[in-house]
Amino acid sequence: MTETSAFRTDRYELTMVDAAIQSGTANRECMFEAFARRLPAGRRYGIVAGTGRLLDLIRDFRFGDAELDWLRDNNVVRPPTLDWLADYSFSGNIWGYREGDAYFPGSPLIQVDGTFAECVVLETLILSVLNYDSAVASAAARMVSVSLGRPLAEMGSRRTGEHSAVAAARAAYIAGFASTSNLEAGRSWGIPTMGTAAHSFTLLHDTEEDAFRAQVDAFGASTTLLVDTYNIERGIELAVSVAGTGLGSIRIDSGDLPTVAAAARAQLDSLGAVNTQITVTSDLDEYSIAALSASPVDAFGVGTSLVTGSGAPAAGMVYKLVAHKNAADEWVSVAKTAASKASVGGRKSALRLLDASGTAREEIVMVATDGPAPAPAAHEPSVSGATERSLLVPLMEAGVLDERYLGAAGTRLAREQNAAAMRELPIDAFRLGRGDTVIPTVYR
Amino acid sequence: MTETSAFRTDRYELTMVDAAIQSGTANRECMFEAFARRLPAGRRYGIVAGTGRLLDLIRDFRFGDAELDWLRDNNVVRPPTLDWLADYSFSGNIWGYREGDAYFPGSPLIQVDGTFAECVVLETLILSVLNYDSAVASAAARMVSVSLGRPLAEMGSRRTGEHSAVAAARAAYIAGFASTSNLEAGRSWGIPTMGTAAHSFTLLHDTEEDAFRAQVDAFGASTTLLVDTYNIERGIELAVSVAGTGLGSIRIDSGDLPTVAAAARAQLDSLGAVNTQITVTSDLDEYSIAALSASPVDAFGVGTSLVTGSGAPAAGMVYKLVAHKNAADEWVSVAKTAASKASVGGRKSALRLLDASGTAREEIVMVATDGPAPAPAAHEPSVSGATERSLLVPLMEAGVLDERYLGAAGTRLAREQNAAAMRELPIDAFRLGRGDTVIPTVYR
Repeated sequence: MTETSAFRTDRYELTMVDAAIQSGTANRECMFEAFARRLPAGRRYGIVAGTGRLLDLIRDFRFGDAELDWLRDNNVVRPPTLDWLADYSFSGNIWGYREGDAYFPGSPLIQVDGTFAECVVLETLILSVLNYDSAVASAAARMVSVSLGRPLAEMGSRRTGEHSAVAAARAAYIAGFASTSNLEAGRSWGIPTMGTAAHSFTLLHDTEEDAFRAQVDAFGASTTLLVDTYNIERGIELAVSVAGTGLGSIRIDSGDLPTVAAAARAQLDSLGAVNTQITVTSDLDEYSIAALSASPVDAFGVGTSLVTGSGAPAAGMVYKLVAHKNAADEWVSVAKTAASKASVGGRKSALRLLDASGTAREEIVMVATDGPAPAPAAHEPSVSGATERSLLVPLMEAGVLDERYLGAAGTRLAREQNAAAMRELPIDAFRLGRGDTVIPTVYR
Repeated sequence: MTETSAFRTDRYELTMVDAAIQSGTANRECMFEAFARRLPAGRRYGIVAGTGRLLDLIRDFRFGDAELDWLRDNNVVRPPTLDWLADYSFSGNIWGYREGDAYFPGSPLIQVDGTFAECVVLETLILSVLNYDSAVASAAARMVSVSLGRPLAEMGSRRTGEHSAVAAARAAYIAGFASTSNLEAGRSWGIPTMGTAAHSFTLLHDTEEDAFRAQVDAFGASTTLLVDTYNIERGIELAVSVAGTGLGSIRIDSGDLPTVAAAARAQLDSLGAVNTQITVTSDLDEYSIAALSASPVDAFGVGTSLVTGSGAPAAGMVYKLVAHKNAADEWVSVAKTAASKASVGGRKSALRLLDASGTAREEIVMVATDGPAPAPAAHEPSVSGATERSLLVPLMEAGVLDERYLGAAGTRLAREQNAAAMRELPIDAFRLGRGDTVIPTVYR
């Protein structure tokens, strides 16, 4: 079945376009904004991810004959709207936070300006991508921050939808993971892939020794042998006897890891395999990784908790109309005012206040009342040595996207941005316990 | 970028094939099984979903030139393995639970038999699809069971990856949801779509009245007006004044819903709009839906909690080798025996014991020690009036899939199966509080 990003959309976006074409408001200039009202409970910062994927999907957001026929057959919209959709191609501007940067409640992560109709139809796609990818990146960053520099591999493809798996691998890599098990993520986004064998490979052979020998014959002694199919102690003994003391690594996927890792290290050392590394992969999350700080673990493989956002599987971002031109062609700031979901209208620009040591102290959101484009923000050092880092960059201008953010190159750029953003965060950001956001959001 | 389901795979599956081709074990006949060791904490039953999607993806699981080139360039596998992958097409058998059926710990949900190599490469794809889709269906079934027959709409596309959104809509429909907001789910799977307008439509217009008038002009008085952009009471008053007492429905997306719904009903009635329905859509889950049992709510829209499995975003299924032929061409049952992740080897068949009233009492898993095909199971009423329902059906035979399970027709079939399975569950299954699985799994 052919699919287009244009149909990964909620029906109401098209019915709104339909009604707005009829009422004459479809072409009003508008600014929409994606932001999170709050972080997931107890989180101190969030990480923006998905932007590079999103730009590609927005470029491909077109309604072909198959889509138009389906909309006509199902009476979703009327003929003038079908004509408008047939010609659709986003021609407005998109500004946004750099992919990989940190964000806080109210950070104006994506700003989309254009006509109402061309902006509103992107709502679902923008949120699907940002909410999932940022949820994974935000969880990944916490895991990386407690790994003490030891490499983390993303191995969660089997615990999330088969396409989300690829996005999750990418988001984890942006947030500092070293590699992924997912082949498509390797191909599409240039992420290093890893993986050698599962328990089924050991079980397939008549003996564990046969299995280890087959694997070492195939990949050499530098491979990783999975030693916990039957009995870990016996597995390690066999692994070293088959591969020799040059065995690259053992993998342990079960048991109480601090105990098991310590015993495995002692056994490997006693067998002379002093350079053989230990990789652990059993239901890890940021808490269990932190609990292995003092353990002789050389690498981690993380699955379920990573790709499900470690308790926060959606980042909670929303996409709201914040300003539009009215019947008199004047810009008007708008916001929902109903209980519990009020938001701040008006176009925004955003700065991160850094103190003289380069540490983030405030997320500054400046609210304007006119014009659609975010004003360039000041960057000057103040008397105190503080600086203000401008957070918004142009991603698409007049429908043309900035190619630097796409593909493997864009993914690497986001990974670098993430590393820089993490260095700016106050040390309190890295406490795993529940707490408030690590810097306040200040509106000016 | 062209993608194939074959690359939504963990690298280790291909390296296992590579080593097994070299060691001569790649063509050993094997049986793999997908099952859940346990249900998510506190859940009493699970719902199988994803099967219809999965069969399509297995049929399309092919390695094209682009994939083979990438594997060669990245030295993932050797030339004999590349040749084997180039010819790959699954030619074995797959048996499984009917999509939409209930499952319990240890239920043999999917059984795959064929050569080691052809079965092992499907691991990630099978688990990605089943784990996500079943997580959503299992959450959806709980919501449906407390909705007292009032329709539920799936509106969570924006809270999960853009492809998972389509799968989530399908899984929710199988578990009894009435409709979805997602257009691709409507097109691909024949699910009724719904949706009219967001707050942005109201905010776009110079007044709320202008917005309501535009919508009623476009869609008639039977439309659903979103009344909580500014003030609900004023919104309802305006809605009825614009649309008349024939207004189809109002939607409320904020506030304390039991209070707000009661006030809205009273106001609508006092305005004479006695047939105008009330739809609520604010951060609902099974608990808040249950809390609205006595409220005058006519329909629910559910987003985040549904598409993220309501606290259990992955169903926890694993895919394990349970039996294979050894060097002497004899069937051997196998299982990992290491701590905390031991499983039951051997091929299985499965029955659900129903008492004389047709209520499920036991999940019976029969373990055999020879042969790959599940034995047909007895179905006879016993003296007590109890029956045993056979749970496994053939999905693919010698690589040919049963077309009845595909597309919109297969989705409807799964929805019917789910309705039947839910009627069999003991009443305790529908308690929302945490508890044990509602029937025990018994091994014979």
